[in-house]
Amino acid sequence: MKVSASGIWSCVEKIRQNSPVVHNITNYVVMNNSANALLAIGASPVMAHAEEEVEDMVNIAGALVINIGTLSPHWIRAMLRAVYQAKKMNIPIVLDPVGAGATTYRTSTARELIQEVPPAIIRGNASEIMALLKEDAKTKGVESAISSHAAVDAARQLNRIYGSVVCVSGETDYIIYRDDVTRVMNGHPMMTKVTGMGCIATAICGAFAAVNHKFAEAAAQAMAVVGIAGEIAAENVPGPGSLQVRFLDTLYRLSEEDTNRYLKIEG
Amino acid sequence: MKVSASGIWSCVEKIRQNSPVVHNITNYVVMNNSANALLAIGASPVMAHAEEEVEDMVNIAGALVINIGTLSPHWIRAMLRAVYQAKKMNIPIVLDPVGAGATTYRTSTARELIQEVPPAIIRGNASEIMALLKEDAKTKGVESAISSHAAVDAARQLNRIYGSVVCVSGETDYIIYRDDVTRVMNGHPMMTKVTGMGCIATAICGAFAAVNHKFAEAAAQAMAVVGIAGEIAAENVPGPGSLQVRFLDTLYRLSEEDTNRYLKIEG
Amino acid sequence: MKVSASGIWSCVEKIRQNSPVVHNITNYVVMNNSANALLAIGASPVMAHAEEEVEDMVNIAGALVINIGTLSPHWIRAMLRAVYQAKKMNIPIVLDPVGAGATTYRTSTARELIQEVPPAIIRGNASEIMALLKEDAKTKGVESAISSHAAVDAARQLNRIYGSVVCVSGETDYIIYRDDVTRVMNGHPMMTKVTGMGCIATAICGAFAAVNHKFAEAAAQAMAVVGIAGEIAAENVPGPGSLQVRFLDTLYRLSEEDTNRYLKIEG
Repeated sequence: MKVSASGIWSCVEKIRQNSPVVHNITNYVVMNNSANALLAIGASPVMAHAEEEVEDMVNIAGALVINIGTLSPHWIRAMLRAVYQAKKMNIPIVLDPVGAGATTYRTSTARELIQEVPPAIIRGNASEIMALLKEDAKTKGVESAISSHAAVDAARQLNRIYGSVVCVSGETDYIIYRDDVTRVMNGHPMMTKVTGMGCIATAICGAFAAVNHKFAEAAAQAMAVVGIAGEIAAENVPGPGSLQVRFLDTLYRLSEEDTNRYLKIEG
Repeated sequence: MKVSASGIWSCVEKIRQNSPVVHNITNYVVMNNSANALLAIGASPVMAHAEEEVEDMVNIAGALVINIGTLSPHWIRAMLRAVYQAKKMNIPIVLDPVGAGATTYRTSTARELIQEVPPAIIRGNASEIMALLKEDAKTKGVESAISSHAAVDAARQLNRIYGSVVCVSGETDYIIYRDDVTRVMNGHPMMTKVTGMGCIATAICGAFAAVNHKFAEAAAQAMAVVGIAGEIAAENVPGPGSLQVRFLDTLYRLSEEDTNRYLKIEG
Repeated sequence: MKVSASGIWSCVEKIRQNSPVVHNITNYVVMNNSANALLAIGASPVMAHAEEEVEDMVNIAGALVINIGTLSPHWIRAMLRAVYQAKKMNIPIVLDPVGAGATTYRTSTARELIQEVPPAIIRGNASEIMALLKEDAKTKGVESAISSHAAVDAARQLNRIYGSVVCVSGETDYIIYRDDVTRVMNGHPMMTKVTGMGCIATAICGAFAAVNHKFAEAAAQAMAVVGIAGEIAAENVPGPGSLQVRFLDTLYRLSEEDTNRYLKIEG
């Protein structure tokens, strides 16, 4: 797969022009940041989690983002109703299996969601992606214990079983689809010191998936844009508080020139 | 109605001196920002949503702010208990019908709340205000499709039926009460790129309603202050991340001189 | 008790090296800030509130932080399960009785939590700490009405009954344990204009308690670090929006030299 700066830019322009509605059923911690990041890139975020309304909200959405970062039974039921409706309406689903592997509840919920309606894109870190595979998925606890090699293998298996594009994020982001592995090398280490940067990346995948139905490309484009914005925002930044603020500013002001200049991708 | 800079300023001073408790039952996305905006203007925010305690909390509040941005059945029951208690205690209610028109659940909840206990102030954008009227309220989906003329008409009807002051916010904010229409022209387009600026305006209406029981005036004063703070904050701002931060700084530092200089109002 | 800058610094280094998992069951308003503050100091925050998973999450945590700022019945049940599990696993609990005294629901929940499993550390403001004692605890409503003398007395009684370290926070923070009273005089008045600074202090107590099982010392160290970071962040700050951002930057960049230079403690 060849992901180009000009292809990214054309999708950013589509997002800015069409303002696709991105329906998020996401965790409490990152709702505000996710909404702000979606606004900054040009999309229209909505948050709705009640069983009574998720189907109505999916119906007006260009993409559905499911994030299991702060689960409870009511929310899971709503997530299921939302993914069924998204399937019916042919609306792309992006799943973030936050904390899969850390508790049985998260692991089994993430798996159920994937099995019920395979997402267009699954984005998680190495240990989360590993945990999604039934075998061998006893959590190692510490993420760094998992080699990106092993996680990429798990991503390949997930793609084979469910058809979903799988993105393993980290210092290098791997986007896996069929025989393709795209590597995005943008980003900055301080981004890991801001809560919800991964969840934001997932939400931005939703914005790109809404305007680009080649989902492997959309995922790579989204990861590149988030990484580039983070990299620019981190230049001479005094710390993670400022990084969070500047990230939104940068996403909002992102130009084609920035995209050309900063993009580090191999496909 | 005549809303003056000196009248606004006298209310800001009352808020700063009395620190009225503003009880918010609001959505997850904006809780933090709403609390920070209320603190910045000088009020005392509290957030409480359990049926078991909303009445106790209403009892110590100077105003009750209800925002339906992320609904669920438990929350609706708590909202109803809170508005009944507010009525009993004669505490002004400010309602933000976030997303009314987008889903049946939101529209019907907003209507039920208004019918049960008409709020002192209802603040929403054009499409939300339109959706509150029973007839003709099938959502147009896209807000810009709705002329401010039509929304102002809807606001007039709502005022006639329920007696509530109705504020239709947008590039120009319209505050409708009986035969009066007050127009506030403060604000900045980038404010729409920060999530929850509307919800913040509603919360600030609560702070003004707590110290000024002429609710049409209180609503206009609140909208003006939010618009002025947004305008000042937007000067040379690099993007919406910084705007959000500077908005709070500006609200906190707002002076009588700023209010005099920036106020753009017609009544 | 003697709390030294070098002792503080050695704990900060332990937090940065070991990245202890701090499991938060906290309120919606401050989740994002708490997570960011914990990341900035070097800890690993997790948020999980479902009864179905809190025990699993406690098992991988170095400390459990319970904050009752936005309660509901499901959350209380999960808090109880979490504290039982923490007791079983000998994991320190830090409790923030937000709003105890303001509603019966909060007061009785805070008391129940303490009686079921006495926390390692309880941190609250004067009126919250007063409200935790059964007798005499009808809320005065206004916090400033309560002298720090009376609150310190209440803290002493709580410590005698439950054994918990009790921290009464305010302009001066009092850390009470047995016959010891440690006073931390760091901080800045503008910190009260940022929502959740108290909740953040509680979360940071969790990070210190995870690496320092002398809990009175851990509480004093945490309060000092939060106060110092707030003080540095407040230098020439334009307002509370910026203070919140700079606080995170400062916490992230905190040096041994800062700690030496700013520490104001008496024990």
